[in-house]
Amino acid sequence: MDMVTRIEHSGRLLGTLRDKLGAAAVLTGSDVPARNCNDWSASLPQMPLAVIRPLDAQGVADAILTCREAQLPFVPQGGLTGLCRGASPEAGWVAISLERMSGIEEIDRASATMTVKSGTPLETIQKAADEAGFFFPLDLGSRGSCAIGGNLSTNAGGNRVIRYGMTRELVLGLEVVLPDGTIITSLNKLMKNNAGYDLKHLFIGSEGTLGIITRVVLRLFPKPRSTMAALCALKDYAAVIALLDAARSGLGPLLSAFEVMWPDYWDVITARAGVKPPVGAGHGLYVLVEAQGTDESLDAPRFQSWLEELMERGLLTDAAVAQSLAQTQGFWRVRDICAEFGQVLGPHISYDIGLAVAGMDAFVKRCKAALADGIEGCESVYYGHIGDGNLHLVSWVTGLSVEQQPKEEMDTIIYGLVREMGGSVSAEHGIGTLKKKWLGHARSEAEIALMRTLKAALDPDHLLNPGKVI
Amino acid sequence: MDMVTRIEHSGRLLGTLRDKLGAAAVLTGSDVPARNCNDWSASLPQMPLAVIRPLDAQGVADAILTCREAQLPFVPQGGLTGLCRGASPEAGWVAISLERMSGIEEIDRASATMTVKSGTPLETIQKAADEAGFFFPLDLGSRGSCAIGGNLSTNAGGNRVIRYGMTRELVLGLEVVLPDGTIITSLNKLMKNNAGYDLKHLFIGSEGTLGIITRVVLRLFPKPRSTMAALCALKDYAAVIALLDAARSGLGPLLSAFEVMWPDYWDVITARAGVKPPVGAGHGLYVLVEAQGTDESLDAPRFQSWLEELMERGLLTDAAVAQSLAQTQGFWRVRDICAEFGQVLGPHISYDIGLAVAGMDAFVKRCKAALADGIEGCESVYYGHIGDGNLHLVSWVTGLSVEQQPKEEMDTIIYGLVREMGGSVSAEHGIGTLKKKWLGHARSEAEIALMRTLKAALDPDHLLNPGKVI
Repeated sequence: MDMVTRIEHSGRLLGTLRDKLGAAAVLTGSDVPARNCNDWSASLPQMPLAVIRPLDAQGVADAILTCREAQLPFVPQGGLTGLCRGASPEAGWVAISLERMSGIEEIDRASATMTVKSGTPLETIQKAADEAGFFFPLDLGSRGSCAIGGNLSTNAGGNRVIRYGMTRELVLGLEVVLPDGTIITSLNKLMKNNAGYDLKHLFIGSEGTLGIITRVVLRLFPKPRSTMAALCALKDYAAVIALLDAARSGLGPLLSAFEVMWPDYWDVITARAGVKPPVGAGHGLYVLVEAQGTDESLDAPRFQSWLEELMERGLLTDAAVAQSLAQTQGFWRVRDICAEFGQVLGPHISYDIGLAVAGMDAFVKRCKAALADGIEGCESVYYGHIGDGNLHLVSWVTGLSVEQQPKEEMDTIIYGLVREMGGSVSAEHGIGTLKKKWLGHARSEAEIALMRTLKAALDPDHLLNPGKVI
Repeated sequence: MDMVTRIEHSGRLLGTLRDKLGAAAVLTGSDVPARNCNDWSASLPQMPLAVIRPLDAQGVADAILTCREAQLPFVPQGGLTGLCRGASPEAGWVAISLERMSGIEEIDRASATMTVKSGTPLETIQKAADEAGFFFPLDLGSRGSCAIGGNLSTNAGGNRVIRYGMTRELVLGLEVVLPDGTIITSLNKLMKNNAGYDLKHLFIGSEGTLGIITRVVLRLFPKPRSTMAALCALKDYAAVIALLDAARSGLGPLLSAFEVMWPDYWDVITARAGVKPPVGAGHGLYVLVEAQGTDESLDAPRFQSWLEELMERGLLTDAAVAQSLAQTQGFWRVRDICAEFGQVLGPHISYDIGLAVAGMDAFVKRCKAALADGIEGCESVYYGHIGDGNLHLVSWVTGLSVEQQPKEEMDTIIYGLVREMGGSVSAEHGIGTLKKKWLGHARSEAEIALMRTLKAALDPDHLLNPGKVI
């Protein structure tokens, strides 16, 4: 087929699909919304040939079969809040958006599970769990916009991984449509089910390259009844490791966050963002510790005395304990202000890397020096979910726009060190296309070859989200 | 090649391998130990052509390449404590035993991880964790004999799943040798690592049909500092569900076991096994609740008052709280006595099924009636890890040997009900060959077809543990 014939052929097939699924289900040409052209990385918007918005798994299967017949690549889309272009289309692709597949199908109180459609926003799920007397622990800054299907496809992390695990750990079952249009309904509610391979893990974290998730069974948890928080100052990283050890053993499963901030981060947020933390500057490192319990009257004094004991042991150089919910929120402001780094620091590049806990401080020191030595005027600050082995870092050269930032040089230095120290180039955000170049810094050739084997087995024609991840 | 030539060819190749790996690494003929012919299901021992016992991943790869060249099917073996023949050889196969790959390579205190060789017995790992001040929560009756690689391959469950999850949740990284001899070293220590597909989940729970696990990175946990236990009697299953709800919300993450026993179980253990539980007979259902905390002096009174409140609310008809470690162990004796059912009940058939929590009691009633109606003289008792959706049941006809028990009829009735109620034919034990016939009762054709696709992609010649699971 020549190009014109091919376009006409695609047009006819999309028209047939529109007749089947309804006019609102197939948007083409000038009806394609701008939001479907990009994700939150805000890089390189590309116009898809069509946006298909099915209402159920059968509609997704119909959309896939249409794309296959037209030999058009297709990409699944949720809330499009990704940061690596995993859900972004290339020009001429078809976007299959789950936006009209939103809603909670069931809450099973005895099994403590919730079954939802994959286009449901995370915040809707959090609220429904709360109203039913449960707690759904996944939480991200994009909670109001991201869809649970996207959370699964990127195996999202967030703030409470140390206690509840990544998204993967919160999923019991799912329904997925394979690249050949087969619907796999595997809405398992059982904690224990060893009848054959556990197929859901293939689709969680594979960034929409192996199938399109249409429904999900999520685990629900008891609602925490108390929250305790402390901001601690320590002299060095050895003390941070000792504090982590003490938090794990002393707070046990109540430990819900362990967020470390290096001194430059502290300087930036106090001097440039105007945050007034309850402990002063000049310390070696800062840690926000949070615990969630079941009884305020018992848990709060216990948390307080645990902390006092650490003060007496000399592990902490300073510490403040939140005495109210407002103070707890104030403590979190110290950590969450990084979401406003765009205004605070101006143009910058953000990194999300994984490292063994023991090597974190060595990485920070080496990385900071290497960036400053290797790139004129390059500054950087460091913070992260250290208990989970997840470090965030932000680097920039003052006075340059985002486009002018020496990203390539920064990437080379930072990911080079990650490789050397056996870390991961993506702790939470995934690979998409933006980090693809660096996948080999975190995975061996044999690992990547096995990923390709899986991709080829499920999508031999490479029509589903081709060129993403691997 | 004719049969004689083939045998000579295999013999030469095994001889070459023996020269390479050492005499102790390749056992053939009368040197093949009886233990390598079978697993704990004690069904159908079969003599492998050879047992290869490598010392490392490279040795496993060498063994695989030899098997491939000789076109001999091969099966990985750990402690051989499986119950479904997942690790049992067929006659003429090669067994690749990990028994000489035992030992702990590293404990990383900051990351709270332990790296071990896959032939290490579970109990060795538990003890090493304990000595290092940590806790490794996986626990099974076969702890002294089973190998961690086997625990991974069957995604073992056990007693503390409600708190710590299945084996899968306890693994961060692994090394595996693929059916083509490729070594994948993916010894990740990070809680968060979204750089490409998470390959480890492919090998966990696939019963040695997709690769041979050689090393494992395990998560370690803080050592519990207090254990509280109560035996509760309740009037009906609605009250059990209410108690589970109260345990989840009141004990929160401290809840470590929730074991339910139906009245017939109670009658059997008191009348036939001579157990003297601290609460009397005649109640509707019995529950063993356990919590593990961080501070004995605070946790024990809290557990006691939580229970008293439930008594006052009328949720419990009777309850006893353990006042010492000895009493806690006595309470567990009530639940663990089922390991001695061989002596207590005589010949019987055991089942391990998964069911949604809400439907468990309906299943028990229907199943008991259907077995009694359908099979003359058939009795059955029911108990399980109800918080995890896992029910165990034991059925028998008095006076018949194990071989004479009407297993086929029992299977048909029990698995038929499991299918009807959307449960799983295997919660913990896996499928192997013994439950293969019933896999279709728990998985759809589309799911099984996808499992076959994965198997064919990784092992196109079907030489690794062929015919197992699917």
